[in-house]
Amino acid sequence: MVLVTRSDLNLSKGKLAAQCSHATAECILKAKRTAPKTLERYLAKGARKIVCSTSNLDSLKRIFGEANESGLVSYMVKDAGHTEIPAGTVTVVGIGPGPRSTIDTITSSLPLVK
Amino acid sequence: MVLVTRSDLNLSKGKLAAQCSHATAECILKAKRTAPKTLERYLAKGARKIVCSTSNLDSLKRIFGEANESGLVSYMVKDAGHTEIPAGTVTVVGIGPGPRSTIDTITSSLPLVK
Repeated sequence: MVLVTRSDLNLSKGKLAAQCSHATAECILKAKRTAPKTLERYLAKGARKIVCSTSNLDSLKRIFGEANESGLVSYMVKDAGHTEIPAGTVTVVGIGPGPRSTIDTITSSLPLVK
Repeated sequence: MVLVTRSDLNLSKGKLAAQCSHATAECILKAKRTAPKTLERYLAKGARKIVCSTSNLDSLKRIFGEANESGLVSYMVKDAGHTEIPAGTVTVVGIGPGPRSTIDTITSSLPLVK
């Protein structure tokens, strides 16, 4: 699973972790419904999670579109806006679980969040 | 859901987000198996996630023990050790979804991660 965040939002450490956790929860539940065997394999292999970033909203939406077109499990988080950012702000796209090579085609050029 | 992290590990932003995401995935799957109605209610109400911290491993283990004793869904993440920290390092405890008042009894004194 790859979690694509937005570097332009400058979210705090805690906020970023919460947003990535939202994306993870939704992707896991979606996979449980639509790709249960893929989910099982993913969990059995250590449930790898990569957190990377893109520079802005347009780019994040493009990545989400590509994930959907590839038939990957994916989810775009819109924040409820309780803290730090306005309600409805798109913060993270979760992609996977799914075939690593397909996910890598979309995300391999993105920098890791340090 | 509350994600309790360890401030003494000084994890990077990306690493912390990945560890919290691990805890979230496991708590969601555990709730799906053992407390599906609680999970449904949680998701319907916005799937709130709080990221806070405690200062060391002993304290994190005590918190995990308290969550278990209270009958809450919970999960302790041991990192695979691919980056930043040695394999087997306990990084995060996820607690919930569950009754907010019960979770708060255990975690309300912990500082939020900023």
